[in-house]
Amino acid sequence: MRVEIVKKVLQSNDNAANENRARFDAAGVTCINLLGGAGCGKTTLLEATLPRLTDGLRIAVFEGDLATTRDAERVAALGVPAVQLLTDGGCHLTATLVQEGLQRIAPEELDLLIVENVGNLICPASFDLGEHARIAVLSVAEGHDKPVKYPLMFTLCEAIIVNKIDMLSLSDFDMAAFQRAVTGLNQKARIFQVSCKTGEGMDGWISWLESELRNR
Amino acid sequence: MRVEIVKKVLQSNDNAANENRARFDAAGVTCINLLGGAGCGKTTLLEATLPRLTDGLRIAVFEGDLATTRDAERVAALGVPAVQLLTDGGCHLTATLVQEGLQRIAPEELDLLIVENVGNLICPASFDLGEHARIAVLSVAEGHDKPVKYPLMFTLCEAIIVNKIDMLSLSDFDMAAFQRAVTGLNQKARIFQVSCKTGEGMDGWISWLESELRNR
Repeated sequence: MRVEIVKKVLQSNDNAANENRARFDAAGVTCINLLGGAGCGKTTLLEATLPRLTDGLRIAVFEGDLATTRDAERVAALGVPAVQLLTDGGCHLTATLVQEGLQRIAPEELDLLIVENVGNLICPASFDLGEHARIAVLSVAEGHDKPVKYPLMFTLCEAIIVNKIDMLSLSDFDMAAFQRAVTGLNQKARIFQVSCKTGEGMDGWISWLESELRNR
Repeated sequence: MRVEIVKKVLQSNDNAANENRARFDAAGVTCINLLGGAGCGKTTLLEATLPRLTDGLRIAVFEGDLATTRDAERVAALGVPAVQLLTDGGCHLTATLVQEGLQRIAPEELDLLIVENVGNLICPASFDLGEHARIAVLSVAEGHDKPVKYPLMFTLCEAIIVNKIDMLSLSDFDMAAFQRAVTGLNQKARIFQVSCKTGEGMDGWISWLESELRNR
């Protein structure tokens, strides 16, 4: 019975996600779903990325959060339009919640829409939002074993940002073990080692993102 | 309709949690629910804590995980009985899953049962397992704003472990802001600043835990 309810929720989400994707495609906008645990640095990644992309690109950000508008305020401070999607305590965004955001900013006015999901390595991975690509973010402080323990997020993504590499010297993070674990789940995902704080590694990630936007 | 389903799931969980608590009380065992995001150091905290508690105490650990038995193996390596509770992709433990664990290790054989929840700052906080106390773990790498952004976990807990303080010099974690945020949600929670890696701060946490066990 419980499984059946879950399936119905996911089916209804998938229908809304397919509507979103069709709308994005018709409008020529690329939608990216940014996922990762609480505190892995998703908003900081946006703060380090968006100023380098804005040249001529029309960008907006949807910020998923349980209760506050803090992340949307950080994005808006960069001069990028931001819409807060509040889940009211819920642990993931849904395609329907994204549709509410699209009532505030129409995809026809954009080239790139980034949806920052709720900070959670688990539930958001099960919910298609209609995105074209998923980016998973992990901080080295979280440990290299996370792909094995939380496989879905690292299986369903086009790129992985290993963030806070400025902390590598103080952590036990084993990059080779991490890369092996990812390869066991997902051969196509590109892995970028970055520090949003020092800027190290950001060039590779920005180039990849720009080429994704050009090739879509 | 969706809210009603959620309410029914929580009601059924609460009934099982109350059964668990009654069983723990009758057996004279203290049950602790250990919560926190993925990679905050919950299992490492157990590795640093259990060897200091074992003197005469009968302890077992239930390890909540999505898919692997890695954490249970780490606890068993300490000589402490461990039962893996696999959620099959689910993002939190339930009181019913704890009951399955109790079929493997009876509470009557124990003084202390520690249940390590799934790594997730959100969903586990909504599910009472029948525990007597909740311990929330946060790594300084996750940021001091987490109580504001994920309030339930920090509202419903008796103690908070701020872990990985050996990384403080490389992080922007503002301990005073964190303490203010916690106090705004929860006046009773004790906050322990520790590094499971260096051992710093562990004495205060161990003393508190031992006094909790004596006073129950």
